[in-house]
Amino acid sequence: MIQNFNFASIPHIIFGAGKLNELYEIVPKFGNNVLFVIGGSSLERSGKWKEISSSMENKSITYTSVSVKGEPSPPIVDQIAENFRNKNIDLIIGIGGGSVTDAGKAISAMIPKEDSIKNYLEGVGTKIHDGKKIPYIAIPTTSGTGSEATKNAVISDIGSEGFKKSLRHDNLIPNIALIDPELMISCPPSITGACGMDAFTQLLEAYVSTKASPMTDALAYSGMEYMNKNMIPACFGGASDVNVRAAMAYGSLMSGITLANAGLGIVHGLASPIGGFFDIPHGVVCGTLLAEATRMNIKKLKELSVAGKAGLKKHANIGALLSGNKLNGEGKIDENCSILISTLEKWTEELKIDRLGKYGITSEHIEKIVKKAGLKNNPVNLNDKDIETIILNRL
Amino acid sequence: MIQNFNFASIPHIIFGAGKLNELYEIVPKFGNNVLFVIGGSSLERSGKWKEISSSMENKSITYTSVSVKGEPSPPIVDQIAENFRNKNIDLIIGIGGGSVTDAGKAISAMIPKEDSIKNYLEGVGTKIHDGKKIPYIAIPTTSGTGSEATKNAVISDIGSEGFKKSLRHDNLIPNIALIDPELMISCPPSITGACGMDAFTQLLEAYVSTKASPMTDALAYSGMEYMNKNMIPACFGGASDVNVRAAMAYGSLMSGITLANAGLGIVHGLASPIGGFFDIPHGVVCGTLLAEATRMNIKKLKELSVAGKAGLKKHANIGALLSGNKLNGEGKIDENCSILISTLEKWTEELKIDRLGKYGITSEHIEKIVKKAGLKNNPVNLNDKDIETIILNRL
Repeated sequence: MIQNFNFASIPHIIFGAGKLNELYEIVPKFGNNVLFVIGGSSLERSGKWKEISSSMENKSITYTSVSVKGEPSPPIVDQIAENFRNKNIDLIIGIGGGSVTDAGKAISAMIPKEDSIKNYLEGVGTKIHDGKKIPYIAIPTTSGTGSEATKNAVISDIGSEGFKKSLRHDNLIPNIALIDPELMISCPPSITGACGMDAFTQLLEAYVSTKASPMTDALAYSGMEYMNKNMIPACFGGASDVNVRAAMAYGSLMSGITLANAGLGIVHGLASPIGGFFDIPHGVVCGTLLAEATRMNIKKLKELSVAGKAGLKKHANIGALLSGNKLNGEGKIDENCSILISTLEKWTEELKIDRLGKYGITSEHIEKIVKKAGLKNNPVNLNDKDIETIILNRL
Repeated sequence: MIQNFNFASIPHIIFGAGKLNELYEIVPKFGNNVLFVIGGSSLERSGKWKEISSSMENKSITYTSVSVKGEPSPPIVDQIAENFRNKNIDLIIGIGGGSVTDAGKAISAMIPKEDSIKNYLEGVGTKIHDGKKIPYIAIPTTSGTGSEATKNAVISDIGSEGFKKSLRHDNLIPNIALIDPELMISCPPSITGACGMDAFTQLLEAYVSTKASPMTDALAYSGMEYMNKNMIPACFGGASDVNVRAAMAYGSLMSGITLANAGLGIVHGLASPIGGFFDIPHGVVCGTLLAEATRMNIKKLKELSVAGKAGLKKHANIGALLSGNKLNGEGKIDENCSILISTLEKWTEELKIDRLGKYGITSEHIEKIVKKAGLKNNPVNLNDKDIETIILNRL
């Protein structure tokens, strides 16, 4: 039986090695005045920024660039939006990791407004964004958040009263997602690993979500299939292999599409408060919690007996997939659930994903974190004690 | 290795039994002046038209309806577009089978123009449509063409110099595809069968297409998985089971999304001239040719030896899926390819899909048809003799 579902639009996707070159044909369709949102210096170091800027000059396109370092906060977005308001920007292009592509998305939505983004953030402000924006092209340089395909921009205000909340509207899905795996080759192993674990978390959480549909299942499974064989190579021997990077980028793209349409689970329900209170990369929070959260979900699904069967079967499907023998599936629920947990543990270990303690999180903080945690569309109900256990095991 | 690919936007999808009721919340977001494009009398007979029209009146929405019977031709589209030009239509809603949803799509694109649709049809006119249109919602009542998710409208001019050609633009993808399987329950077995075979043809042709990507593969496979178990029940004992209808509708929706992004093969390359020269339902052409075309493709792929392996493996994947034991997959290429052909033959037989001869097609017409046939994105090259054989076997 197919549950009722909605599936929002997706961006126009342009995928493949060397596809950055198509950007120069696309830009004039939107206009002649472009704002680039970029990150730190890595784009410059890789020589790609020089390539992009000279191509813009060759095409006689007026462009400006702003740099957003780290995760975008309300003051950063507000300041940039103010600076470029009434400047007749035709198109915004965000090139960078998840923070940069989210920043670009937020700026494209806030230039047409007159006030602070804070007023429109879920759970923070009281206004609803109407979806009006400057056209936006997202070009990821990491394989992580899948932001190039989502309808939300995550905005952070880090501190003891901090938050990580979303500006969200169906219309904020980028007009175009341009994914060129060549841009990811220079991404260092530690970032590749944490981002890869974030994307995989999104795929798995969307796949087992209470809001999953046959469409999100098909795309999430496909994303996990490609990431499975490439997660470790991308951080080690295959880092400069464009096919390995393409598989990771594809998984990340699928994670954005599926999370936007099926939602997420407890790992992301914890990533929001942990990332708000502590200065810790989002990919590390997800990567470090994924195996423990999956173990807990499977345990609780087993306790539900008949009602937990469908959820267990889905976890088992992915265990079989990760075992490299997806044909080993049906029937062997327990065995494949164990394979899923042990593979995620192995990845966490091999990719050297930090424990939470490294960022100053101790058992004293757990209560505060749990209080702000959300279950989102987790496949099974978890109580505070269960959530505490997940965190405790990764301090 | 992932080949480079593009994936166009898809409509916002609203899927599920009873979802027609959401239409009345959505319409006011587009405006207050609606043009309905409907088909013959089946919507009236089912009582659904009364339900829709009284809901519009209750919401004080101004609406008009036009009826399009049979496949839309240039004069029909031109006439309706002319009648509603400068009438401030805010939204067009097409409710019906593939012909009706295509007609609605074409009308939404032609109201903003001043001349005939003929000028914009691929292979007929010389103008390129710019994608400007009145917003369009497609609501299918059959599970067939997947038109609710595609960027083209097929326009027919039947006769000895006839054609079936597309008006195509990325922006013609409907704004919303509302798929309510309750609307399909009254569809009679002969139409359900022919439409189902059309949708399955589109899924299989997209899956084995030279333009297939991991995304289209995942969605096409998922569509075939749901259609497999429901193709025969939908035409017999399960015709009034909304879950059976939902599975067929889901398959059809996936077929639209995947054909728009991966293209089609020889069956659709033949459907265009055959449907142009003869008055024969599109679903019957596809259904009647599918098994023979698949047999020919597999034969030719085998002749290619190494170069044909990937294509054979894809056909075998679907054979294994249809066998009800997809785990039977890897390795058994020959066996699973045979299962694919024999299952398609069994369906053609059980669904009583007419042979071409019934519509007056004889061996004398073959040369003319072959001359106008296109290979599209067929997985293997076929010569005129091969294409002749496919048709001959279904006269």
